[in-house]
Amino acid sequence: MRFLKALGLLGSCVAAASKYDEPIRPQVHYSPPYGFMNDPNGMVYTNGLYHLFYQWNPNDTVAGTPQWGHATSEDLVHWNNHGVAIASATKDEGVFSGSAVLDVNNTSGFFDDSVKPNDRVVAIFTSNTPEKQTQDIAYSKDGGFNFTRYSENPVIDINSTQFRDPKVFFHEDTGKWVMVVAKSFDFEIAFYTSCDLKNWEEVSTFSGGLYGYQYEVPDLVKLRVEGTSEYKWVLFVSINPGMPLGGSGTQYFIGDFDGETFTPDDHAVRMADFGKDWYAAQTWSNTGDDVLGLAWASNWQYTGEVPTKQWRSCMSVARKMGLKKNVKYNPGYTGYSLTQEPLVDKKLRDESCHGKAPLSLESETGAFEFRINATQNDGVSDKSSVRIKVSNSTGHLTTLGLRPDFHFFIDRSDQFEHPLYNEKISVYAQPDNDEKPVYDIHGIVDRGLIEIFINNGTVAFTNTVFVADADKIQIEADDGYTVNGEIYSLKSTW
Amino acid sequence: MRFLKALGLLGSCVAAASKYDEPIRPQVHYSPPYGFMNDPNGMVYTNGLYHLFYQWNPNDTVAGTPQWGHATSEDLVHWNNHGVAIASATKDEGVFSGSAVLDVNNTSGFFDDSVKPNDRVVAIFTSNTPEKQTQDIAYSKDGGFNFTRYSENPVIDINSTQFRDPKVFFHEDTGKWVMVVAKSFDFEIAFYTSCDLKNWEEVSTFSGGLYGYQYEVPDLVKLRVEGTSEYKWVLFVSINPGMPLGGSGTQYFIGDFDGETFTPDDHAVRMADFGKDWYAAQTWSNTGDDVLGLAWASNWQYTGEVPTKQWRSCMSVARKMGLKKNVKYNPGYTGYSLTQEPLVDKKLRDESCHGKAPLSLESETGAFEFRINATQNDGVSDKSSVRIKVSNSTGHLTTLGLRPDFHFFIDRSDQFEHPLYNEKISVYAQPDNDEKPVYDIHGIVDRGLIEIFINNGTVAFTNTVFVADADKIQIEADDGYTVNGEIYSLKSTW
Repeated sequence: MRFLKALGLLGSCVAAASKYDEPIRPQVHYSPPYGFMNDPNGMVYTNGLYHLFYQWNPNDTVAGTPQWGHATSEDLVHWNNHGVAIASATKDEGVFSGSAVLDVNNTSGFFDDSVKPNDRVVAIFTSNTPEKQTQDIAYSKDGGFNFTRYSENPVIDINSTQFRDPKVFFHEDTGKWVMVVAKSFDFEIAFYTSCDLKNWEEVSTFSGGLYGYQYEVPDLVKLRVEGTSEYKWVLFVSINPGMPLGGSGTQYFIGDFDGETFTPDDHAVRMADFGKDWYAAQTWSNTGDDVLGLAWASNWQYTGEVPTKQWRSCMSVARKMGLKKNVKYNPGYTGYSLTQEPLVDKKLRDESCHGKAPLSLESETGAFEFRINATQNDGVSDKSSVRIKVSNSTGHLTTLGLRPDFHFFIDRSDQFEHPLYNEKISVYAQPDNDEKPVYDIHGIVDRGLIEIFINNGTVAFTNTVFVADADKIQIEADDGYTVNGEIYSLKSTW
Repeated sequence: MRFLKALGLLGSCVAAASKYDEPIRPQVHYSPPYGFMNDPNGMVYTNGLYHLFYQWNPNDTVAGTPQWGHATSEDLVHWNNHGVAIASATKDEGVFSGSAVLDVNNTSGFFDDSVKPNDRVVAIFTSNTPEKQTQDIAYSKDGGFNFTRYSENPVIDINSTQFRDPKVFFHEDTGKWVMVVAKSFDFEIAFYTSCDLKNWEEVSTFSGGLYGYQYEVPDLVKLRVEGTSEYKWVLFVSINPGMPLGGSGTQYFIGDFDGETFTPDDHAVRMADFGKDWYAAQTWSNTGDDVLGLAWASNWQYTGEVPTKQWRSCMSVARKMGLKKNVKYNPGYTGYSLTQEPLVDKKLRDESCHGKAPLSLESETGAFEFRINATQNDGVSDKSSVRIKVSNSTGHLTTLGLRPDFHFFIDRSDQFEHPLYNEKISVYAQPDNDEKPVYDIHGIVDRGLIEIFINNGTVAFTNTVFVADADKIQIEADDGYTVNGEIYSLKSTW
């Protein structure tokens, strides 16, 4: 079961082989050079690099036996590919999802003084075989590029075939490593603690919310409540399939965590993203108080059939997560809400167009960022809307929009014919001000993916789209709306 | 505030005025003779009649100031219209949703010996004015036809504009009336008790699950666990808007109730129906151990714009509710599940077609019932499916189907162009048997509405459709499926 792999060189070759220029290949999002990608894994920040590993089947554009692919970035938008980081140990072994931490203090004992503290990376992942799923670890002495599996793996074996996706972080107050991991078929998130990343003890479980078919890829993060010195914890639980919108999706819970037990504030279940394509979210470790994450931007209902050829799936943009208090749920209730801010470096901005709608911009890259304020005036007609149209030269388009009934929608009809590919999706978004509703709408439009963040990211709405060569964006407002803002074309990061 | 109304005669005229023959008017479902209908109200069974009251705006086909419309049925499929049962007391008053009970023992004191016990009906409803929402009552001495408002209304006033939809039932063990009512903006279901239906005391609250914008129309029912002598309680909570699928929907919770407090078994939130059009479910009172209910078959996202003219909205068919233990959620987990069985009288069956798919039947009524067993055989191709096609003579159709990935879907494209009208909707349905998946699929197809019940009603899936003159149903199975069953055309109940 032991193995050593040094793929830095091969990785560079792989990256060079892909030009990332296919018609619907995103230009400011990460996608694999080829093959099939799903969950983000092993996200750790060290030595100025954001490491992104991911579930990868390099041999086909459908899901297969996954290994950990690897990419790194200094700025979360430009990525270098490094090929396979953790490969299957046997033909039957899938290297399933997991996480990575920086073991600065060598709690694991894998390192000696010759290894700089910032190079001491330990990956924790699920080894999937036909017999069972166990939690295994591997260590890297070069800051996350080359990994050696621990000789005494597995580190947790409960003799289950449905036990996976360990996310590990260091809990300062107790001085212990904490693992959140899914007992998938039991609809349980189990919490384990460890002093050395090798010996783990189960200390609690959590269950609740939507069940669907199974739980997957949990994450637990500590977020400072905006504008206060208060901290809360947010537990992400992905479900697939069985989300009410169909297939895959991510719910979250807000509460407290004492190092062993997650205690939710309430029994509300909240949606991390209201679109169809944002699953298996994970956050980077070792980023201090900043909580940065991203998710796989697809849905298991149709991911193996989407009309891309050389590769399948991209990640969402990295998002800075926050927690806001007193967010309006309706005119009479305020509560906590997760916030998500897209981290798309301003230096990618190229051409721009700003002012009052109508606004329009074209770009060869097909990548745009826009941010508008839409004010709904008194007496607005039911028939009015604000529309964001993303189209190609033949007029084939995706339409997004805001309606006076406070719904934001996407219409992605006639793009990809599949019975499970919802073409029209909508989300209710409560305006901050009842008297004069004002919406802040921030969008990242990038060929095959459109991410929308409403009202400072309290509502996220991420959906794949499949219009080839869509290079134009238009923002229109009917009578009854006042819309101001800007559109930027974005330079390709590839 | 006091008023008396005797609309039996007017009601008959109203009914006679509608021929219920419009192209997409359901033929075995209840729809109002004209005007706009939403939530079912006041459902009580007495003297051999199922009373169905409903939110009605008889003056327009969009929502307005609602009054209680009234219909009765002996068999839950043939309905007689009786016009307005409880009208607005003032121009500004909406007679909002509520329930009705049979006060056999005259706990309210409204009745004397001249009123037969089975004629003693008390309605409990929300009086909505611009100032506030209060819970009011009215009594009927003729078994639910004519109502007199209580002179001391309101019976509950908490000085709130968001406090509505009281559902009342008699709790045998404590010998008290119990009211479940929504504090809509607080995401709370409040429980009140009373000895006389006039004096109410708040005894507990419940909150949890999906929040969306607001809670509405709760119901709490006691269900015998199938095949056992055990009873559990199910709490229904409707949300609008803000359901993940968009707009309106109904979640439920399973637990126990001691007469004052609902204690959920777990913190799971379950969907009462996975379609887009099943909201504000209510059950009949005074039906003994049988729990029978129905819901409004529409969605606030588009209900005011759907392409019907003389009337808008229908109710779902009445459903017998049950609770099943050991229902498979995935191959490793079993738990309780609500079951729903459509109560469509067998005497409505007209022509039939049965045997192995392909099956096909036509009917001038456009109303059908089908029930099939679909077995998924080894080696089924990913591309295979079972399809149920409902079409008209021009080939315009709705397609429903089952896929090897265990999803059941509806494709209602090209029927009603509206940004919030999801055209493709799907639900995951776990087969009972992992080795050889077998699905039981029961459908009621009725022009403007299609209701699907999978695996003995553990999954319900209700969606409006808008194909005019759809008079043909075809059931097809690709290689890899063995499908057997029957289709019946249904006689119109109008």
